[in-house]
Amino acid sequence: PQNVLTEPTPLEEEEYHQRAEEYLEEVVGKMEELQEGREDIDVEYSAGVLSITLPPNGTYVLNKQPPNKQIWLSSPITGPKRFDWVVAGESMHQKEGGGVGDWVYLRDGTSLTELLRKELGITVGLDPDAQ
Amino acid sequence: PQNVLTEPTPLEEEEYHQRAEEYLEEVVGKMEELQEGREDIDVEYSAGVLSITLPPNGTYVLNKQPPNKQIWLSSPITGPKRFDWVVAGESMHQKEGGGVGDWVYLRDGTSLTELLRKELGITVGLDPDAQ
Repeated sequence: PQNVLTEPTPLEEEEYHQRAEEYLEEVVGKMEELQEGREDIDVEYSAGVLSITLPPNGTYVLNKQPPNKQIWLSSPITGPKRFDWVVAGESMHQKEGGGVGDWVYLRDGTSLTELLRKELGITVGLDPDAQ
Repeated sequence: PQNVLTEPTPLEEEEYHQRAEEYLEEVVGKMEELQEGREDIDVEYSAGVLSITLPPNGTYVLNKQPPNKQIWLSSPITGPKRFDWVVAGESMHQKEGGGVGDWVYLRDGTSLTELLRKELGITVGLDPDAQ
């Protein structure tokens, strides 16, 4: 059957910026942890654009795209994708009062969090209450 | 007929970095000129990643992708493209001893210089000797 995550969850502009920035900042934090053991990794975050150079893969770019309320990713391994914020009521951990959100590439249901876990080896975007 | 620009011109690693950096730095310079009349434009260039916020379009990202010897572009208007360095012997100004190069999206022959001219309104990548 079709993936249940087929529509973005509407976000006010302010909430979009907050959620996107929180997410990117968490990626920065995790990459900085990874950097401690690897001096060849470069991480830069400025003006809503996060670039990660991870040899031998190449350069990843994650950036806010405010007009679309999306996060865009350019991966040297799997190419470009555009992620919308989706709050899932099913197929993810659910707490009272609402589901858990993630950034999702709606064309194929790819989770940004899952992609970063696979390609960069970092775990981000988990609800701290759920851990 | 098929576009004549169908293969990248081989580059040594050092020459790739030099050409890509020169190009991106020229884009930075032109964008800074554009900024003089528009305070809403943001330009950041660091570690081979150039991000340009140009309202109302959104955020453009240009980055070096050294493993492929390419420049990648993410445009909020026309999407993602990957450009290879191509020296053209035909259809461009030619000087003695070799053709003039440009960064070209080989899938459809799009010139990065032409795309930036159309979308950002800047002119880069012209051989100074040809002007």
